[in-house]
Amino acid sequence: MSTSSSTKDTVPDPAGADVPAVTAGEAPPAVRHLVSIDDVTNDDMRALFEHADRFAADPRAFADTCPGSISASLFYEPSTRTRLSFESAMLRLGGGVLTAAEMTSSSVVKGESLADTIRVVGGGYADVIVLRHPSEGAARLAAHYSPVPVINAGDGSHEHPTQTLCDLYNLHVERGRIEGLDVVLAGDLRYSRTVHSFAYALARFGANIVCVPQPGFELPDYVVHRLYEEFGVNPMRADARRLGALASNSDAVYLTPQKPHQLSLFTDARGWEVQQVDAVYMTRPQTERHPNQELSETAYLRLEKRAMAAESLRDAVVMHPLPRRDEISPEVDADPRSIYFKQAARGVPIRMAILAWLLGRLPVGEITGSFEGGIGSPVPAGPNPCPNPSCISRTEARHVAPRLRLVEREPLRGVCAYCNREIPFTVVGCSSSGIYHAPDSPSVRQILDEHIVLLESATVAEELGFRAAVVPGAR
Amino acid sequence: MSTSSSTKDTVPDPAGADVPAVTAGEAPPAVRHLVSIDDVTNDDMRALFEHADRFAADPRAFADTCPGSISASLFYEPSTRTRLSFESAMLRLGGGVLTAAEMTSSSVVKGESLADTIRVVGGGYADVIVLRHPSEGAARLAAHYSPVPVINAGDGSHEHPTQTLCDLYNLHVERGRIEGLDVVLAGDLRYSRTVHSFAYALARFGANIVCVPQPGFELPDYVVHRLYEEFGVNPMRADARRLGALASNSDAVYLTPQKPHQLSLFTDARGWEVQQVDAVYMTRPQTERHPNQELSETAYLRLEKRAMAAESLRDAVVMHPLPRRDEISPEVDADPRSIYFKQAARGVPIRMAILAWLLGRLPVGEITGSFEGGIGSPVPAGPNPCPNPSCISRTEARHVAPRLRLVEREPLRGVCAYCNREIPFTVVGCSSSGIYHAPDSPSVRQILDEHIVLLESATVAEELGFRAAVVPGAR
Amino acid sequence: MSTSSSTKDTVPDPAGADVPAVTAGEAPPAVRHLVSIDDVTNDDMRALFEHADRFAADPRAFADTCPGSISASLFYEPSTRTRLSFESAMLRLGGGVLTAAEMTSSSVVKGESLADTIRVVGGGYADVIVLRHPSEGAARLAAHYSPVPVINAGDGSHEHPTQTLCDLYNLHVERGRIEGLDVVLAGDLRYSRTVHSFAYALARFGANIVCVPQPGFELPDYVVHRLYEEFGVNPMRADARRLGALASNSDAVYLTPQKPHQLSLFTDARGWEVQQVDAVYMTRPQTERHPNQELSETAYLRLEKRAMAAESLRDAVVMHPLPRRDEISPEVDADPRSIYFKQAARGVPIRMAILAWLLGRLPVGEITGSFEGGIGSPVPAGPNPCPNPSCISRTEARHVAPRLRLVEREPLRGVCAYCNREIPFTVVGCSSSGIYHAPDSPSVRQILDEHIVLLESATVAEELGFRAAVVPGAR
Repeated sequence: MSTSSSTKDTVPDPAGADVPAVTAGEAPPAVRHLVSIDDVTNDDMRALFEHADRFAADPRAFADTCPGSISASLFYEPSTRTRLSFESAMLRLGGGVLTAAEMTSSSVVKGESLADTIRVVGGGYADVIVLRHPSEGAARLAAHYSPVPVINAGDGSHEHPTQTLCDLYNLHVERGRIEGLDVVLAGDLRYSRTVHSFAYALARFGANIVCVPQPGFELPDYVVHRLYEEFGVNPMRADARRLGALASNSDAVYLTPQKPHQLSLFTDARGWEVQQVDAVYMTRPQTERHPNQELSETAYLRLEKRAMAAESLRDAVVMHPLPRRDEISPEVDADPRSIYFKQAARGVPIRMAILAWLLGRLPVGEITGSFEGGIGSPVPAGPNPCPNPSCISRTEARHVAPRLRLVEREPLRGVCAYCNREIPFTVVGCSSSGIYHAPDSPSVRQILDEHIVLLESATVAEELGFRAAVVPGAR
Repeated sequence: MSTSSSTKDTVPDPAGADVPAVTAGEAPPAVRHLVSIDDVTNDDMRALFEHADRFAADPRAFADTCPGSISASLFYEPSTRTRLSFESAMLRLGGGVLTAAEMTSSSVVKGESLADTIRVVGGGYADVIVLRHPSEGAARLAAHYSPVPVINAGDGSHEHPTQTLCDLYNLHVERGRIEGLDVVLAGDLRYSRTVHSFAYALARFGANIVCVPQPGFELPDYVVHRLYEEFGVNPMRADARRLGALASNSDAVYLTPQKPHQLSLFTDARGWEVQQVDAVYMTRPQTERHPNQELSETAYLRLEKRAMAAESLRDAVVMHPLPRRDEISPEVDADPRSIYFKQAARGVPIRMAILAWLLGRLPVGEITGSFEGGIGSPVPAGPNPCPNPSCISRTEARHVAPRLRLVEREPLRGVCAYCNREIPFTVVGCSSSGIYHAPDSPSVRQILDEHIVLLESATVAEELGFRAAVVPGAR
Repeated sequence: MSTSSSTKDTVPDPAGADVPAVTAGEAPPAVRHLVSIDDVTNDDMRALFEHADRFAADPRAFADTCPGSISASLFYEPSTRTRLSFESAMLRLGGGVLTAAEMTSSSVVKGESLADTIRVVGGGYADVIVLRHPSEGAARLAAHYSPVPVINAGDGSHEHPTQTLCDLYNLHVERGRIEGLDVVLAGDLRYSRTVHSFAYALARFGANIVCVPQPGFELPDYVVHRLYEEFGVNPMRADARRLGALASNSDAVYLTPQKPHQLSLFTDARGWEVQQVDAVYMTRPQTERHPNQELSETAYLRLEKRAMAAESLRDAVVMHPLPRRDEISPEVDADPRSIYFKQAARGVPIRMAILAWLLGRLPVGEITGSFEGGIGSPVPAGPNPCPNPSCISRTEARHVAPRLRLVEREPLRGVCAYCNREIPFTVVGCSSSGIYHAPDSPSVRQILDEHIVLLESATVAEELGFRAAVVPGAR
């Protein structure tokens, strides 16, 4: 039995999401958002790439695409690169730009909630909102309240879908396809949000991944697990000797959606043999997220001229989400395979495509987008069950009502509707009956989605006034 | 005998107000400013509302209104909401925007006066200046020096005329008129600049006001006094029982320009009976202006669903200048009477109208505007008499010459020409004769406006070299 | 023998300057930059002035000059005036503007090099970069890496060429010519970058300079020396009695490119007699650069009404780069000879001309510009020889390779290729032979430019592994 709680939520919203626009009275057209890379299908992405190609070919020829439209950059933490990239895209489309680059210094000090800010800015100031926020789930919250499209330009360590779209677009331009490519992910694979999103996206498109982590900074298990669960990707040991200096110090792993019999040609006791690589994606050490200075910078992987001489990298493009520190030597900049500055530049045409789509300036129906701002159900009782201290439901606890999304009923699993973090629990309450159960109790099946309360312990349940279920036959 | 000192000042200005524009030599057209709500007549406002209606109906259809014009946002204190609202309006009109959102971090540190900054920015960079400044009277000073229109986007606790225009415009849209409406003002009525300006403006239009203050935060006497003096508004006790929960804790006051006999129907021993209210205007606690944390937040008035069930509020719209904190419960957001987000959104079309007017893009003569940048007369002797420590004449004492405006000759009353604060004095000097007099001396009548020196005490007068008048018959 | 190292550098660049643009594959047109006033010829400037005249006559008539073009203001230190002036110019030309007014708070904290930032922003976000940076030589470095034109909007105390162009343009407008004018430079002539650049530029155009310094703040010897070396300008004692109050306290110096016999008419034992002055250029005390508060502000030169009464100043315009503090009394503002606010306003049309030129929107070939982004040669061995602690090669030592430009071979002289500071040395190494020599050794002539290493001392040379030359006949 799957969950009845979809992303399109029709539960009435006590927080008042249905803000009437200035021209109240007529039915507003469905508003689309880009909060997560999951909000677009592979076909959507391919269509966006084609429009980006068109825009890139002559960036100044499209000023009649969005005349009179206004984007608002609401940046609650600084990010000049991302902000300028969006603003350049909007100007190229003929639109206007409102900039709030230091949001923390203004409304916030007066104690305003993000939801209120979004309703004001989206209620008449701007036609699309580009949001950067340090709290995870902030963009999802914003989309829920916004009368105009919201684009997530980074919410904490959570999602940054336009960076992922930009990376994929670069592969599309450089290689003509994404399916079946062999892409090396190198460096800090543990703490880099960018690399996790990119890995999921590569898997979605059926590309293969060679992980070459900084020792100690391997891809986390939950990422590997999700790659397997959602995309059937199997991790295998890889023989990365042909990668030369780049991989000399690491245990490489090969992640592929291919069936074992397809791989047999290149596999022996040493694991799958790396042949020709299509792209190397370097990442900087995410030192700001490392506990206790785990990594001294000097020891970090460094891509140098010598490493690029490896035969397997002969045709590989070198990518990097930038800013870089020392992980790519400047001597590699002049190598024609180094595309990281091109990669950044292509952020403009792909963002032009995203803006034009969300502003309704691309052919109707061509790009669907699955996200219309829905967001799970209010938690019916008890404290906020989200375990993530960086979640917007925690950082704006004064304003934000906790919300839950059930992702599975059997076994029962729920996530925070803002940040998608899995919610831990040992007992399940029913807000209607006031009774709590063990998670595997058959009674749990009977509880309606909107009555389910995921609780830390029986003690907590009783403190909240729930009574224990009388288990037939017990005692 | 009334004063000869008008707002249009022809006294030669030692501070050099007559800055020649780039195209010096030809007579510049009269420049209009919006520094105070008093700078526009009721008819001016009605005309602005009509243009705002036109702009609101199709905000993107007016990009040919101000092509090639540039506005400059000079913000000496942060206010993202106000700034974005103006910038959105300018972009919608087809103009360009220059933004200086953090003025304090730049020119100011080099010691430049506001007057110089304004002359530079208005001298060729921008066609209209939107100024936000923490000092009272800053916008009046700026208008005095600016070759282009200045719009006051807030000067300390003093004026914020576009907020008031926005509030009135909302009543106009929601109710079709302002005259005769019954408007509840609720919350912190003592420290909220917005609410004082709004009260004066309601009185000007002949609307009635029901004050429902947070206990201890009543409308100040000087506001009530001015309402009476200028608009004939009489405060009466009000019977607010029909307002229900909202007023349960407060002593309500009814302010109306109506004659007693018109009121008799609804008045008895308990005061005027509140029947149907047209609008409730909630304000947040201005905690940043409260001395000694006067008010704990928890105790503040809170508009909840229950309060909105009162019969007298059946057709009342709920307004709030935003940002709100907790004074309106989120559960009220979904109520169709809650218009505070619409209210903010309507800030854009009304500001479009203001910008188009000041940039000369509305039909000539339709809107007059009374303010052409004049500003009282220089104080002819002695120290700065303005008692307001937040006045621009105090905060920029190094650059700003004190100026006086006489508002009455009998009895003699003068205000600071920048911040309008009444100047206290016990003796009156004549800068021509060098003699000082008691304020009620008949000799004071003879002194020309430009020779009047308002002095704290005889001691101060003598320190400045004034001699006491020989009073006929004395000693 | 002159140097073979030109500004157009063809040495392969290990730092990877040749970043391919998005549309890689076709030969990009030569990119011009404005890093120094030396990057434009006198004829270039005259052409720019003519276009500025055209723009000033009707600033809003040129919105079709650069439609679809985007400028990016990258400001690593705040300067509202300069930034708004450029942004106004770009908007007047019909272009769009990206603003990063507080660069230090964003990418920099992630450790990104200026070169990388420039390659990203110039690689697709913007069509021209306006850069302000606290480090000297920053704009030259940026130009070297940028795929689009870079305009130096101030690099530390080094260059600010658009300010100089603006000053010259004002003389052109007010006087119809620059050649042969007599211009008084008054105030802090020692620490003001603006005044040094202006003095060189006046000399280039054959104007005469009367220095009226604040005592103790005379024009530095190296500036006087360069004026003599490059432009044949001779300093003479000046009899400034006719300048009246302005010069009463100073020893005036007359700097003129004229031959002695042309001067004899006005010269006697008291020096050259100041007759009629065409312009007075006041500068504020550069207190932020004064060591130990050398100058108490009260004692500083102050231009007052009285001083402007001097006969020799009857037709002189009063200029000031602004912001001013107290060095021009406000009472002078109303004097028709005071043009400092006009001077600032004219910054817009001259910057329109500069932007239009660099964006390729002026007739081809009309303005040449000498600078295509070249920058000396890498220092082949040893530490960074630049003695300037504010040089970008010092402040970004982690990213910037030291580079040298030889300005003379006999006697040997080299400057830092970024900040142009002369490099001190006592011995000369050859990176090819590994031998070091005395600077006057005939062997030094044989060393190829790219092998020259300028070294502090023989000790340092030996520490670096150089061996002493065997001098024939020595010992």
